[in-house]
Amino acid sequence: MREIRVGLIGFGTVGSGTAEVLRLQRERLQRKTGADVRLHRVADIAIEQLPPEFAEVELTRDADEVVAAPDIDIVVELIGGIEPAKTFILKAIAAGKHVVTANKALISQHGREIFAAAAAANVEVGFEASVGGGIPVIKALKEGLVANRIESIIGIMNGTANYILNRMTDEGLDFNTVLKDAQAHGYAEADPTYDVEGIDTAHKLVILMSMAYGVHLRLDQVSTEGISNIEPVDIEFAREFGYRIKLLAISRNHGDSFEARVHPTMVPNQELLANIGGAFNAIQFTGDMVDDVLLYGQGAGKMPTGSAVVADIVDIARNILNGAINRVPSLSYLPENLREAVITPLASLRCPYYFRVTVQDKPGVLSAITGILGRHGISIQSVLQQGREEKGVVPVMMRAYEAEEEAVRAALKEIDALEVCAAPTVKIRIMEDE
Amino acid sequence: MREIRVGLIGFGTVGSGTAEVLRLQRERLQRKTGADVRLHRVADIAIEQLPPEFAEVELTRDADEVVAAPDIDIVVELIGGIEPAKTFILKAIAAGKHVVTANKALISQHGREIFAAAAAANVEVGFEASVGGGIPVIKALKEGLVANRIESIIGIMNGTANYILNRMTDEGLDFNTVLKDAQAHGYAEADPTYDVEGIDTAHKLVILMSMAYGVHLRLDQVSTEGISNIEPVDIEFAREFGYRIKLLAISRNHGDSFEARVHPTMVPNQELLANIGGAFNAIQFTGDMVDDVLLYGQGAGKMPTGSAVVADIVDIARNILNGAINRVPSLSYLPENLREAVITPLASLRCPYYFRVTVQDKPGVLSAITGILGRHGISIQSVLQQGREEKGVVPVMMRAYEAEEEAVRAALKEIDALEVCAAPTVKIRIMEDE
Repeated sequence: MREIRVGLIGFGTVGSGTAEVLRLQRERLQRKTGADVRLHRVADIAIEQLPPEFAEVELTRDADEVVAAPDIDIVVELIGGIEPAKTFILKAIAAGKHVVTANKALISQHGREIFAAAAAANVEVGFEASVGGGIPVIKALKEGLVANRIESIIGIMNGTANYILNRMTDEGLDFNTVLKDAQAHGYAEADPTYDVEGIDTAHKLVILMSMAYGVHLRLDQVSTEGISNIEPVDIEFAREFGYRIKLLAISRNHGDSFEARVHPTMVPNQELLANIGGAFNAIQFTGDMVDDVLLYGQGAGKMPTGSAVVADIVDIARNILNGAINRVPSLSYLPENLREAVITPLASLRCPYYFRVTVQDKPGVLSAITGILGRHGISIQSVLQQGREEKGVVPVMMRAYEAEEEAVRAALKEIDALEVCAAPTVKIRIMEDE
Repeated sequence: MREIRVGLIGFGTVGSGTAEVLRLQRERLQRKTGADVRLHRVADIAIEQLPPEFAEVELTRDADEVVAAPDIDIVVELIGGIEPAKTFILKAIAAGKHVVTANKALISQHGREIFAAAAAANVEVGFEASVGGGIPVIKALKEGLVANRIESIIGIMNGTANYILNRMTDEGLDFNTVLKDAQAHGYAEADPTYDVEGIDTAHKLVILMSMAYGVHLRLDQVSTEGISNIEPVDIEFAREFGYRIKLLAISRNHGDSFEARVHPTMVPNQELLANIGGAFNAIQFTGDMVDDVLLYGQGAGKMPTGSAVVADIVDIARNILNGAINRVPSLSYLPENLREAVITPLASLRCPYYFRVTVQDKPGVLSAITGILGRHGISIQSVLQQGREEKGVVPVMMRAYEAEEEAVRAALKEIDALEVCAAPTVKIRIMEDE
């Protein structure tokens, strides 16, 4: 039986999961591919030996040994981060190896260089596991929806943020309580910045946009806001008006430019995206031919992510076996047809808004605030003022009709400059019913 | 530029949609594949000429001209039904053409013969559009989840049935009222049997099971019940207990046998499947590595189905261009590794049940019914009796704890034989919270 030999760099959570998936599914993959797709080498700096079930796998502390090994067909990079992951991947490509990675930080920021190197060396780079964990979202986009102009991408792409928001919503807890509990149980990292500030979500949006539209874009072109300033009162207000707060990645295709934004959003209850529980992810593409397609599943985790990594390995193995390398271009469009992305300025966005203004509870305050909003053309649909608090500071919650982001920013700047304003105003964009 | 020429048989709804997708996406597909994938010939017995935008396409009334044309690479069959579709497809295969079809009736009942012929002729048969319309469900299953033992398939696979149940639920209408309205608006066929009696759903389940498990199975191995006996009181009962009624296809993998059933089901509100609105479809796979993956979208319609047909055309075009024919086996597993399916008898199913017994409103009736259920080991959790009706006949609704289907059947047989029983008892299986 023909062999496809895999070399793995990084035996952490996803690395050991990938090794497990290859081991547990080895016979099944033989029955599907007619080849023996097997783990042959592992490099990891932190382990002395592999678990006994991997007795036939060679372990080294030197990743270069895997990258350069003549008996390896596919190098799987699962150490994460930019360096040394990038160097290992480029070395593997230079050595004529195909590469599979789950590294969204790397692909979103250095994908252009990596894909160019891979095209020049006529090898493949698989990155299904970089977005949506186990969900075959990249294959669906590149192949299943190949015959579509993608009109929009909207998704919940970070399980940790979704988990925190769901527990805040279901249990009425505050952000820090849930975060600490999530950290204690391993659902959130010791440094949760990437997850809760939307950066990880932005990485994934960059990757999906590049394939959806056939564009190069930079991470800093995505407007990114996180969830760390969301409070129970915001969630309560959302509930009363029929919304749930979700951290969404949103991109819309305006033809000559593309929206690219990550921020907490009030999503109407009847939308599937409002009902994505636990730490699950869901990504919705809208195509001009196919209408809405949504994919849902585990966006992270050892075995689900391993499932996606091995799907890439099998995809490449099939191309090796059939002499069909780069059968599908890395970014869906052929490299020579990729363009530079023009991003729609967030300032021109129009949508309904929620504001939480924190003010001294004095007569005339509400009138001052609504006066400022009115002068900027922002109409208020409803206001909710909480009961008086100890220090005389109260949150005032408002739902505004559709307004332009630029006007909102200018208005909030004026409001926050008022003497009675005790903290920066929090704004949450509202998704309209379709 | 290399050309891939498509011959289309059947210019009805999906046929003309496929032609439109090919035309509208032609330049996009060139930028993705480097080839000109274009419609070259159409056969249809009912049209005199094609719309003007297809001026360069050859029209014939004789499908054999398309099937045998030496200038056609891929034959697309979109006439539906068993014959003459089957004959055309087998002729195309014999002529060395690749085939794409959306024909679930044909693939589910004659797939074995068709795939064997295609393997022998070294051509491909694409059938993505046969399940889930525009949703790339077959590609997700065969490729995205390649490294999984599929544990279960649960889905809403018929848009017409889902539309009818949703309108009954949202508007409190009865089945016949909604059906007639759906027929008047083109959402349901003149003969709705396939859609409302679960047959179309069973076709699709057979196709998914064969790929999920690598088995041959027959349509008559699927236990199939429809929705035509669902009444507003059933929906009302479901609502009160936190369920929505959905027509589900369900298969579970027990290793040595597989469940295969289609029936209305009370689905807990918090499940995504309970929240699939309109005529949308949703299909959930559970894999041993990946956990739950759900795909949602338009399960039918001219352009969404056309999108899936063209995705298959592009997939095959890429294999032609790369000399990689049958890169992925038709049924996921290599033909020599397919087995005969053993189906778990429905009689051994265990789940909670809902019953609607229709009885003369006389003293002692309820005690007679619960007595029979009790003797068969079926415990009632709650009973709801509607107010007295004109002729003294009332529906009694009951929720039973988990029971075995065989016991349920025996008990209902006894109940329906009671003199006070005025109509056959309706039973609906209840999906348990996970």
